[in-house]
Amino acid sequence: GWVRSVRSQKEVLFLHINDGSSLENLQVVADPSLENRDLTFGSAVEVQGKLVKSPHEMQNMELKAETIRVVGPCDPWSFPLKMKKRHPLEYVRQFPHLRCRSNTLGSLLRIRSEATAAIHSFFQENGYVHIHTPIITSNDCEGAGELFQIETSNEARESAEKTHFFNVPAFLTVSGQLHLEVMAGAFTHVFTFGPTFRAENSQSRRHLAEFYMVEAELSFTESLQDIMVVMEDLFKTATSTVLSRCPHDVELFHKYIAPAQKVINVTGKSCNPTFSFCRISYNEAVEILKQASETFTFKPEWGCDLQTEHEKYLVKHCGEVPVFVINYPYDLKPFYMRDNEDGPQHTVAAVDLLVPGVGELCGGSLREERLPFLESRLQRYLDLRKFGSVPHGGFGMGFERYLQYILGVENIKDVIPFPRFSHSCLL
Amino acid sequence: GWVRSVRSQKEVLFLHINDGSSLENLQVVADPSLENRDLTFGSAVEVQGKLVKSPHEMQNMELKAETIRVVGPCDPWSFPLKMKKRHPLEYVRQFPHLRCRSNTLGSLLRIRSEATAAIHSFFQENGYVHIHTPIITSNDCEGAGELFQIETSNEARESAEKTHFFNVPAFLTVSGQLHLEVMAGAFTHVFTFGPTFRAENSQSRRHLAEFYMVEAELSFTESLQDIMVVMEDLFKTATSTVLSRCPHDVELFHKYIAPAQKVINVTGKSCNPTFSFCRISYNEAVEILKQASETFTFKPEWGCDLQTEHEKYLVKHCGEVPVFVINYPYDLKPFYMRDNEDGPQHTVAAVDLLVPGVGELCGGSLREERLPFLESRLQRYLDLRKFGSVPHGGFGMGFERYLQYILGVENIKDVIPFPRFSHSCLL
Repeated sequence: GWVRSVRSQKEVLFLHINDGSSLENLQVVADPSLENRDLTFGSAVEVQGKLVKSPHEMQNMELKAETIRVVGPCDPWSFPLKMKKRHPLEYVRQFPHLRCRSNTLGSLLRIRSEATAAIHSFFQENGYVHIHTPIITSNDCEGAGELFQIETSNEARESAEKTHFFNVPAFLTVSGQLHLEVMAGAFTHVFTFGPTFRAENSQSRRHLAEFYMVEAELSFTESLQDIMVVMEDLFKTATSTVLSRCPHDVELFHKYIAPAQKVINVTGKSCNPTFSFCRISYNEAVEILKQASETFTFKPEWGCDLQTEHEKYLVKHCGEVPVFVINYPYDLKPFYMRDNEDGPQHTVAAVDLLVPGVGELCGGSLREERLPFLESRLQRYLDLRKFGSVPHGGFGMGFERYLQYILGVENIKDVIPFPRFSHSCLL
Repeated sequence: GWVRSVRSQKEVLFLHINDGSSLENLQVVADPSLENRDLTFGSAVEVQGKLVKSPHEMQNMELKAETIRVVGPCDPWSFPLKMKKRHPLEYVRQFPHLRCRSNTLGSLLRIRSEATAAIHSFFQENGYVHIHTPIITSNDCEGAGELFQIETSNEARESAEKTHFFNVPAFLTVSGQLHLEVMAGAFTHVFTFGPTFRAENSQSRRHLAEFYMVEAELSFTESLQDIMVVMEDLFKTATSTVLSRCPHDVELFHKYIAPAQKVINVTGKSCNPTFSFCRISYNEAVEILKQASETFTFKPEWGCDLQTEHEKYLVKHCGEVPVFVINYPYDLKPFYMRDNEDGPQHTVAAVDLLVPGVGELCGGSLREERLPFLESRLQRYLDLRKFGSVPHGGFGMGFERYLQYILGVENIKDVIPFPRFSHSCLL
């Protein structure tokens, strides 16, 4: 493992060693004669000895060293991490190749790994088929937002459009939904969990150019309630798995990083399977906002998008717990969402899940399965409705936002191993 | 589910229904009065009735229908798949949005999903931390091969180099290795499983522009043998999981798609944990090839790369089982592989795993952990060696090639949901 602390006393040498398997270090107790000047903070060592019950209360076991070999020295002066120092997240972000050796990022990455496994297990155990939806695509699913375009590196610049590698312009995916819908025509339940991309020129703490989405699609589903049940169940199952599998790693965040009130909600109510998330309609949401004593920068009005300030208010209004908002105005949502046919305030069967501190965590909808409602759209999208079309719906969850929420991390750049955003692609 | 066959007799109506959960259909038995003209091959139906023990030998259970509702009709004339017809893989490849509804692709996608889950479980159960290595990178890991470059879609063409979205030229990753090595400096065992990209202008049945790689990195590892143990163990564990979880889906491939002799090896020896893969050195491989009675297009010579014809011969020579070839010439391999310091035939600690029908399935090496051997290279790569460097190694496995091998599928385009290759990016 790697040395996390060295304490040399007259009669005994104490080392703390960490191999990345947990936040806790292993205490090594050695004869002072085993000390050598390469045995510094950050160095990699191989220690042989006996694992014994520790006489100290701080730990259960300790290693009585017989030999200590420094396999990789580390100059503590040039190494940017310092012994026993809690470095701010902004500081370690400058060292994308070394920050995983800080306690905070170490814990984050173990939690991220456990959350990833928990999400895969949740879907597998519920009979979903996992699909690798493509990264390179000739579609633009959302029809909005900035896309990244790709070309081969050498010919890219000089040559004309007609020499595209794929014959057509190709982009990085913004969502796997359309490809999942293809698969939902053969498998009743499908999911994907992969990278998605937006070329938004934003330096905000909320946006990344490359981020991960969990997306699911459910066939033979005629009710938005069924979609919400899966969203809620996914959140609760994944979160309780993470809390039980890495309690110390999560505790580090809740103790030193997250605002206190949020922690109670995540580890308490939100994870409790008997506690239901709050559910309101868009119409109710607008009424709540109109009756609010607060003055908003954007006046709440039926037919307008909910702004961040509105979402925050709704979450607070519901008691700082996750809130489903359903049935949004027809004109606000993309073409594939199912028409509720409910004029004059015409809505579609869409749902957003808002959570404290983060805002929108998931978005989903019933999909329009009726051919006449979709006519004059993409030929292949129509084909899916022609040949055994079924009522279906689905949703997506931003994985980084999920981690931000359960851990209380302010900046999205701190919950992904190698953040990419405008003007920054380190490593 | 979706109707796979309709058989109308005087006294009874038989339907076969499939919901994508397995290759097997559910037989529905109904009164002929329930027939209607929308009840065609490919249509989506909702059937209510009683599940009863079947009197027929072909199936265990059948559904006695009380009501049948066609939720989505399907015009059998324009639907490109036909009832009870085994469509060639080349034919269904033309319909990327519908081919998942053929038996073969249905089975493939269930197997792919199970293999994905098995690989995640293997690493998690062995204490590996899962890392999402980045898709967009400013590095070029292999230093060779064609890269895809990315730009924002609107500014891309007109503007000069200085307006790059990330300030620097950015590419799609060809390997997660360097980023995994970063993480192997904090966690003893790490892995990644994600898309990688090559802009090779190839129409061959062996290449895709977008494909999936499983990559692992192991710290405190001083022997190539330890890396090979993990490669072999991963292969055997994943394959026996797939064989036991989707026996019927795998059988379809072994019965109708794969050449017979290959099947025996995959389901037999290769999966048997007591059977070891063959292990030879590059030096031995060259000797075997030189003594071969066959004449090769490329004459085998020490210091030259093994060609496909050579790899095929070696696999045959070893009895059509997986073969590890280790210790390749220094000049053939990239800078990061560990120098064996064994002149005059100077080699590095590299390993390739060759398998019947596919060729190279995995590649790995010990990494050069000694700073002086790497001097004058990338600054950040050197930093990793300065601060607590450890002996380590790793490998990558092509996931599509893995599926081709265990299933005996000739063309790589048939083992990925949405294939991308030069001149083709459908959907």
